[in-house]
Amino acid sequence: MIAVLKQGTTPEQRDSLCEWFRNIGLEVHISEGKFHTILGLIGDTSRVDIGLLESLSIIESVKRISEPFKNANRKFHAEDSVIDIGGVLIGGGNFQIIAGPCSVESRDQIIGVAKRVKESGATLLRGGAFKPRTSPYDFQGLHADGIELLLEAKKETGLPIVSEITNANDLELFRDVDVIQVGARNMQNFDMLKQLGRTNKVILLKRGLANTLKELLMSAEYIMAGGNERVILCERGIRTFETYTRNTLDLSAVPMLRELTHLPIVVDPSHATGISRLVETMAAAAAAAGADGLMIEVHNDPEHALCDGAQSLTPDQFDRLAVKVRRVREAILK
Amino acid sequence: MIAVLKQGTTPEQRDSLCEWFRNIGLEVHISEGKFHTILGLIGDTSRVDIGLLESLSIIESVKRISEPFKNANRKFHAEDSVIDIGGVLIGGGNFQIIAGPCSVESRDQIIGVAKRVKESGATLLRGGAFKPRTSPYDFQGLHADGIELLLEAKKETGLPIVSEITNANDLELFRDVDVIQVGARNMQNFDMLKQLGRTNKVILLKRGLANTLKELLMSAEYIMAGGNERVILCERGIRTFETYTRNTLDLSAVPMLRELTHLPIVVDPSHATGISRLVETMAAAAAAAGADGLMIEVHNDPEHALCDGAQSLTPDQFDRLAVKVRRVREAILK
Amino acid sequence: MIAVLKQGTTPEQRDSLCEWFRNIGLEVHISEGKFHTILGLIGDTSRVDIGLLESLSIIESVKRISEPFKNANRKFHAEDSVIDIGGVLIGGGNFQIIAGPCSVESRDQIIGVAKRVKESGATLLRGGAFKPRTSPYDFQGLHADGIELLLEAKKETGLPIVSEITNANDLELFRDVDVIQVGARNMQNFDMLKQLGRTNKVILLKRGLANTLKELLMSAEYIMAGGNERVILCERGIRTFETYTRNTLDLSAVPMLRELTHLPIVVDPSHATGISRLVETMAAAAAAAGADGLMIEVHNDPEHALCDGAQSLTPDQFDRLAVKVRRVREAILK
Amino acid sequence: MIAVLKQGTTPEQRDSLCEWFRNIGLEVHISEGKFHTILGLIGDTSRVDIGLLESLSIIESVKRISEPFKNANRKFHAEDSVIDIGGVLIGGGNFQIIAGPCSVESRDQIIGVAKRVKESGATLLRGGAFKPRTSPYDFQGLHADGIELLLEAKKETGLPIVSEITNANDLELFRDVDVIQVGARNMQNFDMLKQLGRTNKVILLKRGLANTLKELLMSAEYIMAGGNERVILCERGIRTFETYTRNTLDLSAVPMLRELTHLPIVVDPSHATGISRLVETMAAAAAAAGADGLMIEVHNDPEHALCDGAQSLTPDQFDRLAVKVRRVREAILK
Repeated sequence: MIAVLKQGTTPEQRDSLCEWFRNIGLEVHISEGKFHTILGLIGDTSRVDIGLLESLSIIESVKRISEPFKNANRKFHAEDSVIDIGGVLIGGGNFQIIAGPCSVESRDQIIGVAKRVKESGATLLRGGAFKPRTSPYDFQGLHADGIELLLEAKKETGLPIVSEITNANDLELFRDVDVIQVGARNMQNFDMLKQLGRTNKVILLKRGLANTLKELLMSAEYIMAGGNERVILCERGIRTFETYTRNTLDLSAVPMLRELTHLPIVVDPSHATGISRLVETMAAAAAAAGADGLMIEVHNDPEHALCDGAQSLTPDQFDRLAVKVRRVREAILK
Repeated sequence: MIAVLKQGTTPEQRDSLCEWFRNIGLEVHISEGKFHTILGLIGDTSRVDIGLLESLSIIESVKRISEPFKNANRKFHAEDSVIDIGGVLIGGGNFQIIAGPCSVESRDQIIGVAKRVKESGATLLRGGAFKPRTSPYDFQGLHADGIELLLEAKKETGLPIVSEITNANDLELFRDVDVIQVGARNMQNFDMLKQLGRTNKVILLKRGLANTLKELLMSAEYIMAGGNERVILCERGIRTFETYTRNTLDLSAVPMLRELTHLPIVVDPSHATGISRLVETMAAAAAAAGADGLMIEVHNDPEHALCDGAQSLTPDQFDRLAVKVRRVREAILK
Repeated sequence: MIAVLKQGTTPEQRDSLCEWFRNIGLEVHISEGKFHTILGLIGDTSRVDIGLLESLSIIESVKRISEPFKNANRKFHAEDSVIDIGGVLIGGGNFQIIAGPCSVESRDQIIGVAKRVKESGATLLRGGAFKPRTSPYDFQGLHADGIELLLEAKKETGLPIVSEITNANDLELFRDVDVIQVGARNMQNFDMLKQLGRTNKVILLKRGLANTLKELLMSAEYIMAGGNERVILCERGIRTFETYTRNTLDLSAVPMLRELTHLPIVVDPSHATGISRLVETMAAAAAAAGADGLMIEVHNDPEHALCDGAQSLTPDQFDRLAVKVRRVREAILK
Repeated sequence: MIAVLKQGTTPEQRDSLCEWFRNIGLEVHISEGKFHTILGLIGDTSRVDIGLLESLSIIESVKRISEPFKNANRKFHAEDSVIDIGGVLIGGGNFQIIAGPCSVESRDQIIGVAKRVKESGATLLRGGAFKPRTSPYDFQGLHADGIELLLEAKKETGLPIVSEITNANDLELFRDVDVIQVGARNMQNFDMLKQLGRTNKVILLKRGLANTLKELLMSAEYIMAGGNERVILCERGIRTFETYTRNTLDLSAVPMLRELTHLPIVVDPSHATGISRLVETMAAAAAAAGADGLMIEVHNDPEHALCDGAQSLTPDQFDRLAVKVRRVREAILK
């Protein structure tokens, strides 16, 4: 970390600041320039509150050289994390497709879809039981019943299941859920992240609509700081000025995150684009970008899906997608 | 609501869709064009799931004419809402300044600041006990002790208090807090909004960093749909590409929200800009834009504030701000 | 186009508006609702000024059903445009890689790079002679000399050349340049677009940093309306709040534009990410997204490039990229 | 400027870089840390190409301490610039209102509006003769005839005139125009900026839709580097995800630019919001934010304006705005 002192800072002020840095365990290197004094801080600066530092009247600016995340940081954990989800591995070269409907609607629906996507090569089943909807008047999911139906589908097909939590008080209901998803709107619900950090569940953490990669990694850090290191990151589009697509899928995030962290990275082209016609193409692009997995909405009857039907594929369309993605994976690994 | 049907829709498909609309209580007006058929839907369309509609294969596009929020909508509630906060009125011409530190740090600090800001004309005291911080390693607030200290400051000064909640499970601790703040990161924590909708507390709802005014109003709707109509909206800056200021304060939101809703609108220039030097000016601008109130960070010792000191004013600076804001208020009301 | 009239519009006002629409050649369908009257307008609405319409006091809102671009619109030109660039075809299944340095710096440099990228499979050579730089103090290109050197490289290698124009007055200098590039900052320099529309040059039109796909197509329309139909569109990243990458590469733009237009679509991952380490991966992703071509910065000595070196590949790195892209192309076409 | 070297940089590499810095006239201070070496560079770093520096393989990151603009920088020019426009002063406490129609349409229109706005207190007349429109099919202005009519209105009323240029080749037509406006879409048309830098005209430079304050100042620098120091900056809204207003008016830009530069700052609430109902309020807010002037669209017949009527005020509405703005000015200056 580098701190630049303002012109006019007295030697006493400078020394008192250096003292403070040394007290919190940092080594300080001072470089005196004509106009500015520059302090180089060495040590575990992830615990320094940058906002506090910037607020000091003698500070011109502060710049981190190392990132403020530690557990998620590739610098301290060079190898890719491989996460075992009930026998299905993700990360470190292991690629998985999570597929299923936006919402669990009925026994027939979820088991029907589960069987179909398994045949096409999906290795995890997704389905929403708790749906965060912008409007209080829209369908919000089947809640406990939805989880029950997912567990039946798991029993029937053997696919581990992924479902979104919207309230940490519901954790008990997720006892047998394999992967707990934190949705984009809850990415900075820090209280919930802390509680998930005390579980032994795999957490799929979706990037918020207006969150930077650094904030995504800091949210992963919240979970990991609690002791739960099994976090999967998910790029699902960010909010921009473009309106043709629902959000803007930021695929550069995949190789960028790959550099920054050892955690597995999954891409959700269904929510990102919000348009089913674009999902196959963007799934292929995500695979080419090096994602460790995909999350795809599939519905046996997309036209009557209770939510987000616009972005769901039919099982046949998903089948085509899975074939294409497999080919692209082979092409980039050759 | 207008639905445009795709070319090639058969009369049977059209009739079956119209039937469905009529079943949910809407009146349907059909207009046949050369290329497209247009359906005009009259009635309570706030309960129509627009995503579902758009997913139908015969639909070209859907457009709402009326907004999907009802309780918050000025169309159904023409007069400004005036909210009584322990005797302090806000809205409908009543202007209030909420002031205080980002975080409650000690008894001396909070009572000291409270007395000073009251003298300068603040009518509500703010102070954070639960702080949502991007990093798990940053200071997160004094929690229950912080609330206790706020209540002492209230007793000492008579100022009603405003504090942020980050977990609905803490609601019991907010028993004597006058205004519960929902922070930007929790604006779409719908589970929490629903729980707050079942309380009789005044809720200060901050706009999310990447949320539209419509989404802000839909989140207010979540609270109001539960029976709690005492919601204050707060503009606090949105995330854009500009980096000189922390966020971009969207002051046009004030007159725009004024048209759309009857709820009081408050502006927080401290968090929006993140720079204490800009706060006085932007507070004056917010008053000129017609805000019903301001939320200002004041610290008796900003240089050593445990968080967000960069944006805090000293009591003297706040005093000057309050004088200027009062003058601007008079200028626009003359 | 649909126009919704405000409540309270009199029959006379409505009829006078309908009369006006009919006078500009549109058919009008009237649908009377309980609260609103809806007018459906059929005909060539691309010539209706939507801003003007919205400004009328009796108009609630206006919505286009068809897009306001015509020459670029796939609806009126179903087949992919194939553009012949001195014998090199692009579009309609023909994929090309444009490679070369950001700036032309010397004879040795440009000819050296040209030979190397040709060997690796590049089919067009790029090189900047006029460089739009944010700072007036940065290197702005060799101008006429740069064009001369590019033409020598063309002679030496046979590769058609692509170079950016920043002032229509320089058109004469581009006499022998095969493809004239319009940079992101000039995408809405309408005067220049009109002048390029009167030439018979192939135009590579880059999307502006904050421009929507619709605006990109409207800018293509400016060129095409002048009679020059040989336009290639280029996605090169948009400006968002994310700062790890220079811009956010919007790869969904590729399949989305594919639906909207028949023009070839090229992707520039070098400028979009601004980081050479990400270019190979994002080039593969762009190919998987269905791009008709790529634009890649290659420099024989990236460390000493006079501009934008951070995003340039070495010839060896480019060679690897070209092999990977070829494999991905095969994978998605299988 | 600070440059951080990568771990593993050899002393030879470091020394060779330092040598290079010294050769371009910079003083170098070296601070050796455990992991990183930090170079502090003192001198005129505005001429250092930061992109080039970042591209070097031994560089971890580079950070400017001082801004890369010089002529526009308040650090080197502490006093506010006051610009004399035909006897009308702007900047340094002199506040002016520029008013008039979006487009010049006819003799009667422009002279009628000019007289009315002058009565209400406008001190400069605006009117577009060259209109950059997104669609080639929209009205593009009266060109030379428009300028003629503006000059007649100037003769009639004595108001200096402001009009937009879209092509530097038209400069001769602007001979008698007092202020030449560079529109948002041309803010980075560097070739045109350079040509304007060689004139002795006052230039009103509008901020681009996706441009940072730093880029705005760099574009001013282009003009000033040519010798023309009479530049007025104009905030007119930036592009964000919010769609209720056309753009997001960034009023914090006013006090922020005030710190960074000595140039006058004008705000255009008409284009920013795109909604005439919001203009009065946002004009008052801009005045409270400390703007040196306003640019307001006024039309004698907004409903039939040939462009942008939605954001135009009637002369009566403008009269009310001017009164309110005057009162706010007095309030903040008291």
